[in-house]
Amino acid sequence: MTIQIRHLDSAQPDFKQRLETLLAFEASTDEAIEKSVAAILHDVKHRGDAAVLEYTNKFDRIPGGAASMAAFDVPQAELQAALRALPAAQRVALETAAERIRIFHERQKEELRGFTYTEPDGTVLGQKITPLDRVGIYVPGGKAAYPSSVLMNAVPAKVAGVAEIIMVVPTPDGVKNQMVLAAAAIAGVTRVITIGGAQAVGALAYGTATIAPVDKIVGPGNAYVAAAKRRVFGTVGIDMIAGPSEILVLCDGTTDPDWVAMDLFSQAEHDELAQAIMLCPDADYIAKVEASIHKLLPTMPRAGTIRTSMTDRGALVKVRDMQEACDIANAIAAEHLEISAEDPQQWADRIRHAGAMFLGRFSSESLGDYCCGPNHVLPTSRTARFSSPLGVYDFQKRSSVIFVSEAGAQTLGKVAAELAYGEGLQAHARSAELRLRPAA
Amino acid sequence: MTIQIRHLDSAQPDFKQRLETLLAFEASTDEAIEKSVAAILHDVKHRGDAAVLEYTNKFDRIPGGAASMAAFDVPQAELQAALRALPAAQRVALETAAERIRIFHERQKEELRGFTYTEPDGTVLGQKITPLDRVGIYVPGGKAAYPSSVLMNAVPAKVAGVAEIIMVVPTPDGVKNQMVLAAAAIAGVTRVITIGGAQAVGALAYGTATIAPVDKIVGPGNAYVAAAKRRVFGTVGIDMIAGPSEILVLCDGTTDPDWVAMDLFSQAEHDELAQAIMLCPDADYIAKVEASIHKLLPTMPRAGTIRTSMTDRGALVKVRDMQEACDIANAIAAEHLEISAEDPQQWADRIRHAGAMFLGRFSSESLGDYCCGPNHVLPTSRTARFSSPLGVYDFQKRSSVIFVSEAGAQTLGKVAAELAYGEGLQAHARSAELRLRPAA
Repeated sequence: MTIQIRHLDSAQPDFKQRLETLLAFEASTDEAIEKSVAAILHDVKHRGDAAVLEYTNKFDRIPGGAASMAAFDVPQAELQAALRALPAAQRVALETAAERIRIFHERQKEELRGFTYTEPDGTVLGQKITPLDRVGIYVPGGKAAYPSSVLMNAVPAKVAGVAEIIMVVPTPDGVKNQMVLAAAAIAGVTRVITIGGAQAVGALAYGTATIAPVDKIVGPGNAYVAAAKRRVFGTVGIDMIAGPSEILVLCDGTTDPDWVAMDLFSQAEHDELAQAIMLCPDADYIAKVEASIHKLLPTMPRAGTIRTSMTDRGALVKVRDMQEACDIANAIAAEHLEISAEDPQQWADRIRHAGAMFLGRFSSESLGDYCCGPNHVLPTSRTARFSSPLGVYDFQKRSSVIFVSEAGAQTLGKVAAELAYGEGLQAHARSAELRLRPAA
Repeated sequence: MTIQIRHLDSAQPDFKQRLETLLAFEASTDEAIEKSVAAILHDVKHRGDAAVLEYTNKFDRIPGGAASMAAFDVPQAELQAALRALPAAQRVALETAAERIRIFHERQKEELRGFTYTEPDGTVLGQKITPLDRVGIYVPGGKAAYPSSVLMNAVPAKVAGVAEIIMVVPTPDGVKNQMVLAAAAIAGVTRVITIGGAQAVGALAYGTATIAPVDKIVGPGNAYVAAAKRRVFGTVGIDMIAGPSEILVLCDGTTDPDWVAMDLFSQAEHDELAQAIMLCPDADYIAKVEASIHKLLPTMPRAGTIRTSMTDRGALVKVRDMQEACDIANAIAAEHLEISAEDPQQWADRIRHAGAMFLGRFSSESLGDYCCGPNHVLPTSRTARFSSPLGVYDFQKRSSVIFVSEAGAQTLGKVAAELAYGEGLQAHARSAELRLRPAA
């Protein structure tokens, strides 16, 4: 099996254009999917459980066909049984990961406590932080069923103090993924329902007789799920619609080339659209990484996916120096950024945009994907320019708190009235003026 | 001029259904607007400045027609001149408001500093906070041109540390709103461009030869602007798409009824779709507020809008007690919640969902709209269940930082490999295992 890797050099006169072309990814909208999803959501909104039951029996090929929604509820005892039945090593690994994720996310919660301050005239201003009441977590079924995603989505909600965490996970052909159920048990999910697709998103957003409507839906899914989430946005909150996963490795040429090659593979094996790029100032080292790629590819069970992804969307990029590598990294705003270098902090300090930064040669992305603690749900497709990893803050919101004292109303009222008249909003002005004491 | 106000009573058997009907608001999608916006965005993306120039000359009826984009740039000197030309009272009011907004938002910035912690094996985990590089602020032109919105959108971006704040504001018939320009000067906007509509949103999102692409677009606009923002979401960040504005007043019957009536008006005067609701346990007091409404309405310059809004979407609701009022308020999750009562804090403590809370009878919403300090851009249409006021945090994002020590890689690597094999992601597992020291 051969692999053709794209080489770029920042010294090329058309480098910027080449890089743009490499990064370009336009999520295409499939009209057939859009129409189908719109119809399913409308049906679920109006027929509720009956619609969800029909779609689930049909799309997930439930053996025999479930007679009622009750058949899709997974009792807590079944979750606990799945956890007990796991091989010991797997259970310990899941529990260790969950605990580390919890600890990191507790730090996020500590940071956001709200505040209050009192002005000399007794006016009090502040910001109150509250958790969402009820959230839905979508977990894909079938081959892309990832217990680690259950932890990464549910643990932050739990830490935020969300009272009810409703997880939906389709079970094609009625087959349940035991590791996913075990992860739900560890994460403290309130309720697991084995439904999926646009019908599950609709049920969570609008509610049915058996499913209470949630305030926000998070978690990855296929094109139908993504389209459904976009459509219910506004009725409920949603997380970002994720694009293909990406890794950008900045390397100064001091890391074992096999390690870097395998890090690139670990992204490429996800998906044929995944993107793995290395930036390095050392041409000899780039050649070594390429040799490692050729050597290691045949040993990979998912070699086909890796080869397609690396060929279509991967690149090895020669840069002038690490400083330039950082500038390019800021333009790319990668989901995962490895800085595999001596003294990585000096380069990290120059990075303004990245979903997660992995510093030093021991910090492979795969460690972060599972168990370092920070979330693995990260902004893709350059959205790290303006968005953040999934976190506790996604399950909290703020309310402003304003208590104006009688004295405060005297000064603030005049300012507000002046501006309100300037904007032609007289009731605003009068509302402020009514609170003014009559002049003595 | 008469006004018919809806009365509800929480003791009615169908109260819950009546309340749902009252609150129901479905933002309809206008297919003609969608198609028009899609075409404009496509055109701006591909023809850049030429398209923006044409649309602006046409839609904004620029007298004589501008010859180039340069004509739409408002020099900083013109902003400063607008500020100097303001009546002194207006200038002081704007500057006072801006300073108070800045102080409140500095508190938001202080709260979010990022964190870092080191584990016993030397592994370091953390979260880095960075501002967005460049943001676009949309300011409506014409009759709904609000200088206060310039402050509320630009000041948080400035406090966050955004390097470039690009404001777009259409000038129908070439008329510039001097108070809006003055507000831009006070807020420290980097650049003001007198373009608007979907073409301005497209220019900010995709960039043109004369306008650098931004990372996020915030600010209110008409249906075309809202449709355009939805469409460019993903390419750039956007704030929430706002629905009609709402106020919910919880009153224990101790506030001057004229004050409450005027507070309801101050919401109703915005828009015929605005919603003003009062909850109160005291039937006599409700009658007094209704009398105030009838008495005060004829004195209002915007009486027509107020009457339509109050008739179509307003309500006076009799509740059992203040405790029940708080429960209903949590279900409504209002944009603006006034708790006009003795000892308002006891009720505020029971509120989980509201955009902003105004406590005590002197805290009219209008004071908060202009100059208390907290933001007046708030979640509407029950989205306060899951979203927050506009704030400094909307102009910042987080990056996870992961430095795994060699020792840390030994323990974390085994956990990650176990889970990666469980998920069938062998390159992930191998990437972790390569960092393990060979067993002695």
